[in-house]
Amino acid sequence: MKPASNLFTPAATEQEMLCIFGTGDLGRSLGQRLFQTGYKVVYGSRRPHSCGPLPPGTQVQSMIHVAAAQSARLVFVCIHRENYNFLETLAPQLKGKVLVDVSNNLKKNMYPEANAEYLQRLIPGAQVVKGFNTLSAWALQNGPSDASRQVYVCGNSLEAKQAVIEVATKLGFTVLDRGSLTAARELEDFPLQLFPEWRLPLQLATGLTAFFFFYLLIRDVIYSYVVNDKDISFRIMASLANKVFPIVSLIMLSLCYLPGVIAAFLQLYRGTKYKRFPDWLDRWMLCRKQLGLVALALASLHVLYTLIIPIRYYVRYRLAAHTISQIKENKTSPFDTTMAWRTDSYYVIGILGFGLYLLLGITSLPSVSNVLSWREFSFIQSKLGYLTLFFCTFHTYLYGWDKFLQPSSYKWFMLPGYMLSLVVPSVVLVLKLLLLLPCVDSTLTRIRQGWERTDPEQERKKLLLT
Amino acid sequence: MKPASNLFTPAATEQEMLCIFGTGDLGRSLGQRLFQTGYKVVYGSRRPHSCGPLPPGTQVQSMIHVAAAQSARLVFVCIHRENYNFLETLAPQLKGKVLVDVSNNLKKNMYPEANAEYLQRLIPGAQVVKGFNTLSAWALQNGPSDASRQVYVCGNSLEAKQAVIEVATKLGFTVLDRGSLTAARELEDFPLQLFPEWRLPLQLATGLTAFFFFYLLIRDVIYSYVVNDKDISFRIMASLANKVFPIVSLIMLSLCYLPGVIAAFLQLYRGTKYKRFPDWLDRWMLCRKQLGLVALALASLHVLYTLIIPIRYYVRYRLAAHTISQIKENKTSPFDTTMAWRTDSYYVIGILGFGLYLLLGITSLPSVSNVLSWREFSFIQSKLGYLTLFFCTFHTYLYGWDKFLQPSSYKWFMLPGYMLSLVVPSVVLVLKLLLLLPCVDSTLTRIRQGWERTDPEQERKKLLLT
Amino acid sequence: MKPASNLFTPAATEQEMLCIFGTGDLGRSLGQRLFQTGYKVVYGSRRPHSCGPLPPGTQVQSMIHVAAAQSARLVFVCIHRENYNFLETLAPQLKGKVLVDVSNNLKKNMYPEANAEYLQRLIPGAQVVKGFNTLSAWALQNGPSDASRQVYVCGNSLEAKQAVIEVATKLGFTVLDRGSLTAARELEDFPLQLFPEWRLPLQLATGLTAFFFFYLLIRDVIYSYVVNDKDISFRIMASLANKVFPIVSLIMLSLCYLPGVIAAFLQLYRGTKYKRFPDWLDRWMLCRKQLGLVALALASLHVLYTLIIPIRYYVRYRLAAHTISQIKENKTSPFDTTMAWRTDSYYVIGILGFGLYLLLGITSLPSVSNVLSWREFSFIQSKLGYLTLFFCTFHTYLYGWDKFLQPSSYKWFMLPGYMLSLVVPSVVLVLKLLLLLPCVDSTLTRIRQGWERTDPEQERKKLLLT
Repeated sequence: MKPASNLFTPAATEQEMLCIFGTGDLGRSLGQRLFQTGYKVVYGSRRPHSCGPLPPGTQVQSMIHVAAAQSARLVFVCIHRENYNFLETLAPQLKGKVLVDVSNNLKKNMYPEANAEYLQRLIPGAQVVKGFNTLSAWALQNGPSDASRQVYVCGNSLEAKQAVIEVATKLGFTVLDRGSLTAARELEDFPLQLFPEWRLPLQLATGLTAFFFFYLLIRDVIYSYVVNDKDISFRIMASLANKVFPIVSLIMLSLCYLPGVIAAFLQLYRGTKYKRFPDWLDRWMLCRKQLGLVALALASLHVLYTLIIPIRYYVRYRLAAHTISQIKENKTSPFDTTMAWRTDSYYVIGILGFGLYLLLGITSLPSVSNVLSWREFSFIQSKLGYLTLFFCTFHTYLYGWDKFLQPSSYKWFMLPGYMLSLVVPSVVLVLKLLLLLPCVDSTLTRIRQGWERTDPEQERKKLLLT
Repeated sequence: MKPASNLFTPAATEQEMLCIFGTGDLGRSLGQRLFQTGYKVVYGSRRPHSCGPLPPGTQVQSMIHVAAAQSARLVFVCIHRENYNFLETLAPQLKGKVLVDVSNNLKKNMYPEANAEYLQRLIPGAQVVKGFNTLSAWALQNGPSDASRQVYVCGNSLEAKQAVIEVATKLGFTVLDRGSLTAARELEDFPLQLFPEWRLPLQLATGLTAFFFFYLLIRDVIYSYVVNDKDISFRIMASLANKVFPIVSLIMLSLCYLPGVIAAFLQLYRGTKYKRFPDWLDRWMLCRKQLGLVALALASLHVLYTLIIPIRYYVRYRLAAHTISQIKENKTSPFDTTMAWRTDSYYVIGILGFGLYLLLGITSLPSVSNVLSWREFSFIQSKLGYLTLFFCTFHTYLYGWDKFLQPSSYKWFMLPGYMLSLVVPSVVLVLKLLLLLPCVDSTLTRIRQGWERTDPEQERKKLLLT
Repeated sequence: MKPASNLFTPAATEQEMLCIFGTGDLGRSLGQRLFQTGYKVVYGSRRPHSCGPLPPGTQVQSMIHVAAAQSARLVFVCIHRENYNFLETLAPQLKGKVLVDVSNNLKKNMYPEANAEYLQRLIPGAQVVKGFNTLSAWALQNGPSDASRQVYVCGNSLEAKQAVIEVATKLGFTVLDRGSLTAARELEDFPLQLFPEWRLPLQLATGLTAFFFFYLLIRDVIYSYVVNDKDISFRIMASLANKVFPIVSLIMLSLCYLPGVIAAFLQLYRGTKYKRFPDWLDRWMLCRKQLGLVALALASLHVLYTLIIPIRYYVRYRLAAHTISQIKENKTSPFDTTMAWRTDSYYVIGILGFGLYLLLGITSLPSVSNVLSWREFSFIQSKLGYLTLFFCTFHTYLYGWDKFLQPSSYKWFMLPGYMLSLVVPSVVLVLKLLLLLPCVDSTLTRIRQGWERTDPEQERKKLLLT
């Protein structure tokens, strides 16, 4: 542990010298921050006389001079990968130094190997550490901000990583060690990503929303205009949206659970769990969380749209008009207990379904799911998840009630939207019920514990061969 | 640091060899994943010729051969604890190797010592690291998923742990170092737990909900049926539930604060803070957070049930009937300002109480409470907590208003539900007020800062003895 | 790595001895917990015979004796900084030991250097580690509780820190390494803080709320009382509050985005990004998150206040009265399609704005923002943030509709509250639109990538000089 002590102890007592290669924006921002934190900063540049203004308090020298002067043990490499080959000439001077590769690429998979691995190959005598590249320019210059609080580092030398971690911690960041330099590619891809797992669910939600919007527009508004010559276009804003959102939400919720059911049947059919699922199923399963969260967002909108119903002008007008017409015609409709039971059940099941939905959403928060054991997590996401799906599906069936049999519901041979939304969830629930049958369930459990059904044909061949 | 460097550097350049003992499900799943990540995997089996099919690309040999061949420095032990004694015979070959104990037990406290500690005792020459056992089978085979993103490791050798952390990081997991091998028991218990701290609060919530449901069923629905011969059973669905939920929520919220008050009085009575609390009080205090969160869930249901009131058929019918009857009898009830003040205050206090309730819930999220200093946390959970309790209790008193004095409220000598719900919170608030009296508060503060009241009797005895 | 192994391995097999200097509350609490976890604990006291009762199972000796006896490698220093100078005399005996500084100060900046750094200076031969000081007294005595789950440590020796981390982990805490001893001051300030970044936003919210409350009180209630002789004071409770909350919320939301816009114009004016912003702007930018979350809380109250509108007595009374008057006067107002479009749009835009608002709030949770890349974070907080501001501003304009032109809206020459609330958001949105103009945007982008506009005057001087 001697070298580590030598490395750290002086840092606390006297100003440590750090070196930055490159005087571009990245180098200047980082240098300014390092200098303000109390480090001595020296820049290395290929053309030290022609580079722009540098942060006050820092100095610039030619790269070779800086490397040779041995003044700093840590060198931040803030130059483009295209210019790395120039560093190769400095290899003897950089031997034993810690090179921090801060670079990023403009696109994914631009180069066959990660920048940091390339650098390590060019200068094998140095200890390359990848780090700081996931920070925003703002955070590099001004210190940690909300989404730039964590610094990821990776590298092959524990000791070199410790030195970099020390600097990052002094700058105020929290450091996560991502292991050896093979993780560099992942770190270099991280700043480029823009919600990759959300793309599919959001596209699906947009597509379904658009489809059901136009479907219901034709079926409700345009039908009414054409057949009854009544303009109810004002219903687009709230009433129509409040049909589209729950429909899409229910379909997307059931699409969270469909791949699990398909996977189970696939395992039953194959008789083993060790064969890989087809790619489309794998991808589908990996975006289940995002599917569910988009569905939850739509369900929340449905709740808010429903709760503002009584303060809408249209609803108030219609209720008053109904009361007035009752008085004028002097007849009172009797209280309908069945109706009271039905609508109350409908609302209550909806509330309970939404409550469970929210619970699923809360346990999806990274900090919550991290403290759960996977037994707890799977209890919530699977058992409570199916219960949620059941409640929400039942809520929709209660909404339909006896309208399923009324011919008046089928305008222009178009089914009401909620009937369409019931198809997928009903299928998922029925398939899940099949999987819960004792004989099916026990086979599946055995397969998931590693048991494999052997093809009698194959088995016989095997016996003959051995 | 030499051995560490030797261990890590080649890993980045050439394929590292890992060894797995055991060809069961665990071993196969792990091996498949390791192979896909780029490791060379060799299995060690007691009967290498009779074990089932292994992941393609891997090979199997007899355990003794594998151990002797020195081909791998890391050995994953994926066999049942019952078969560990077989490994004892391989002790000489395993000397200096890192043994990763992946095993779990079927029940808590099956054995006097943790599996990993047992393994370390059997093979003292090896460096045993406990790890990977908290992952789901899915995550072992397919990589990190939502609740299986973290790998916990513990072990006595820093260096051995680093090697395991390296592998886990390469597999895509985040590693948490839990210290020395004494933590192994805790890690082995983790996958077995199913919401242990939630059991008591959930049982309590269920019990209270059931009690108040039947109580109010008798008092409201059955009473009305027997005495007035009126069937209002449809009210069970929404109206009755919307009484039960807030009642249970308020009681459970006050039960969060009762143990703290009891503890304070106990400390005052004993005159010291260094005596342990009785076990029941300790257990109670440890589940306060869960009590509060269940109470918050019920309060949220109460809010949703309340907000759907105006769209319920029953409510709309009653309002219309009231308007119609007013017109028919041709008398208009004048606007009652007191009534307006009262109901508005009632709703507003309820909203503010619920808002604070939500704030308490949000600060209970692990990621939020982690960034708070304990001074901030206790400010929120204690000061704002009592304010929440006060608001919610006051909300209930406002609901009662003058009904406390109306004999008609006492049907069949049964108090209305909300009156019952006020008992515990009122007691807690009164006791808390007592504790805030300056003389009591200052004594308590001194006790909590370590001061102890000395019994004059004891003191005299002490003096005589010394 | 030998010393580390020597340090750790016996810990697992036999009871390790730990030493605590100081028998005050801190020392007693910590000692009790250490003893219960399985350590042997010995206290060092300056006056071992006159100190109070100690946890059962522990023993006390004179400090010099304890230090000399070499019985423990770890010494917890639980004495006040004022008495550290006494430890200086023990420097020879403490050489090579790990001193854990647990102390806190009563105020920030009481001393020129951190307690731990002072201790290290007094006893240079020891390895000082700062730690455990951020825990509550409760957690020190009873183990981890909600806000005291994490232990922060810092120190110059990696090895010494590992030993402390080991103990903390055994006590059940999660340890965060904050780097070298220079971080000690930060750790010592942490327990003293009480929402420092929240103070400004909360003061602002309180000030704005008070101003708008009295403004609207005069304009609505008092005006009505004086001019129309009508007492509508009951509207204070819900109606008035439901005007104040959205007004303050919208202003505060726009204040989140104003500093960013100002900063952009400042950078454009200066032609560089490397000059520091004025202090007030820096402070303002640092509390944007808190401003936004307070605004979100107020917006949530606005939503709840709005949703209870239909169950309020006043509203029901007015609706019934309206229906009754319509019947008595025997005239029915026709259905107003424009009115239906307008109110529905108003509600729907509000709901969508609130939904985005919530999304911004959820991504502000530490665990969520940690998993986002800064590109994702800035997409949400900037793009979606401006969209939220636009929706909420538009919601308010729709509320106003044609009332902007009605003279009756201007009572006592006082503008309606919502008009005042529109000033800042409208300015922010217009300025942002200016920044999005292609020519402005491209210049700003270049400046943010490090480009600097050179003053032609200066440039000439430079050329003359060189």
